[in-house]
Amino acid sequence: MNTKICIVGSTGHINYVLEGVRNDEQASVVGIAPGPEEEGVNGLLGAFSFSKNPPREFDDYEKMLKEMDPDVVVVACHFNNHARISTEALGRDLHVFVEKPVATTLEDLDSVKKAYEDSDSFLATMFGIRYRPTFSTAKKIVEGGAIGEIRLMNAQKSYILGERGEHYRKRESYGGTIPWVGSHAIDWLHWFSGREFKSVFASQSREYNRGHGDLESTALCHFVLADEVLGNVTIDYLRPEEAPSHGDDRLRLVGSRGVLEVRDERVFLINDEIEGVRRVPLRPVEKGIFGDFLNHVRGEGMCKVSAEDSFYVTETCLKARLSADEGRVVELGK
Amino acid sequence: MNTKICIVGSTGHINYVLEGVRNDEQASVVGIAPGPEEEGVNGLLGAFSFSKNPPREFDDYEKMLKEMDPDVVVVACHFNNHARISTEALGRDLHVFVEKPVATTLEDLDSVKKAYEDSDSFLATMFGIRYRPTFSTAKKIVEGGAIGEIRLMNAQKSYILGERGEHYRKRESYGGTIPWVGSHAIDWLHWFSGREFKSVFASQSREYNRGHGDLESTALCHFVLADEVLGNVTIDYLRPEEAPSHGDDRLRLVGSRGVLEVRDERVFLINDEIEGVRRVPLRPVEKGIFGDFLNHVRGEGMCKVSAEDSFYVTETCLKARLSADEGRVVELGK
Repeated sequence: MNTKICIVGSTGHINYVLEGVRNDEQASVVGIAPGPEEEGVNGLLGAFSFSKNPPREFDDYEKMLKEMDPDVVVVACHFNNHARISTEALGRDLHVFVEKPVATTLEDLDSVKKAYEDSDSFLATMFGIRYRPTFSTAKKIVEGGAIGEIRLMNAQKSYILGERGEHYRKRESYGGTIPWVGSHAIDWLHWFSGREFKSVFASQSREYNRGHGDLESTALCHFVLADEVLGNVTIDYLRPEEAPSHGDDRLRLVGSRGVLEVRDERVFLINDEIEGVRRVPLRPVEKGIFGDFLNHVRGEGMCKVSAEDSFYVTETCLKARLSADEGRVVELGK
Repeated sequence: MNTKICIVGSTGHINYVLEGVRNDEQASVVGIAPGPEEEGVNGLLGAFSFSKNPPREFDDYEKMLKEMDPDVVVVACHFNNHARISTEALGRDLHVFVEKPVATTLEDLDSVKKAYEDSDSFLATMFGIRYRPTFSTAKKIVEGGAIGEIRLMNAQKSYILGERGEHYRKRESYGGTIPWVGSHAIDWLHWFSGREFKSVFASQSREYNRGHGDLESTALCHFVLADEVLGNVTIDYLRPEEAPSHGDDRLRLVGSRGVLEVRDERVFLINDEIEGVRRVPLRPVEKGIFGDFLNHVRGEGMCKVSAEDSFYVTETCLKARLSADEGRVVELGK
């Protein structure tokens, strides 16, 4: 049985979908439409130009969903439209693979959660970094007990700003740097420690954003998790253009018996059994995030990114943003 | 003219003094005494066993100060006694070189500051890490403008806990991990950015401190500085015994045109002029902290660690500890 996929918009990490479909003979993209604000899909159409069965193009995503009756809807629009389209798709009992953040306001997030509860569909957000060889290797090492109980976590996101489109420059369409860039790192804190977030204090600044309007160029988030586990996230868009890579993702996990780090596309471990710093061999990637998602919706496995995690991390990001906006500690609770 | 030095206690970084005296023909240690809680100096006496003019030993530091009439008093006792002895020494118009933190309570700090204001003496605390080849090289690079305006700072202190003496295990004598370990890193944030601290939010935990009583094994501090400059400090005692070094000091400075890092006893730079990551050659150390201090008190130069910085950073540490103790944001102001 073929899994039919429709794509709405092409912002962000749509490459996860293209890669997943390329590696899956049972899945095909049957329709493509821009988002409600005309978010272009031209670049995306190019990706199918050599396909024997190219997807149909639509002007109107609602019409597409009605006519094509897909199994899966991929949502990657201006970030403020993710919630609305996800809610609509869940309302049609379609599975949803949505760019993070799932929503840019807590009210919108509630709508998606409600639509999810009322449906029998699955939803996952694009926390694709979990699937990188570094992060998936790190996860296995931690699960194997090599660092004991996690007590302290330091996560870093650092990006080249470049010249970004209009929808990055307005809070309303962008949502903020903490939800957009920080959500990955906030996901790591939760995913690795398995702990509930108890409170957050965050700060942010727009200084030196080079004409990017509302976009915050720096941010810091400080989390207290259950059992006094501590975690921080540092975020910036100040990575120089000449840097050796677009992003500099890092994670340092300090445990009761060792320290594990992801840095420079490598994983480093020190603990009470080994001498010196050991570079951990990376596990090959078995399946990317969209392949994992497709397995899940076909009942052939559990996607590493659950709907619950997607919602919980989004909520935590939005409350971290609230903390930064208002300069106060925000309590968090499941 | 010979600079006469008396030493009270021998905790912490007394090696700065030994090294400074060894390299200075015009300075000599003339007396050694334990602190008011009998803080031993036996280890210290060994260091002078081959000296032609070994220092006199005293049982009572007050008697020592009276009889020897030194120019400089070095204070390195149980941390809660630093303030009291510094205050007494300043009251005698002696110069004071004191282990950090200068004080373990804000009231004690006020006493030292008042004594300093009323005296013509100099005081500096042992922020010796500023003088390491890595940190002093980093400072020159930043002053040269290679990273532009500093916008975001991430500082790290990570130590092997080992088995520590009784005075580390009680808050009253130890003062807390944020003032003891964190003070270095909090000093870096201020020293590198030159900015005033505006607020702090901090957290800490004693979990997994392996029977060390009140000692906090992990801590996180989140600072907002003037002009929305952000800085965080991560502190832990969970570095495994088998690690390649006792401590893992790191500093990452994100500026408007580049990023500079101190890590693994090296300095790394990326900016908008160079391609890839550059390892910066380290400047040789010209003079250690105590040599610099001696120059200052002889009127031959300005010590890189000022009395104002010593007091300001101590105050900031104590307010960060207050934030962690009470779980609330603490406003900071000069």
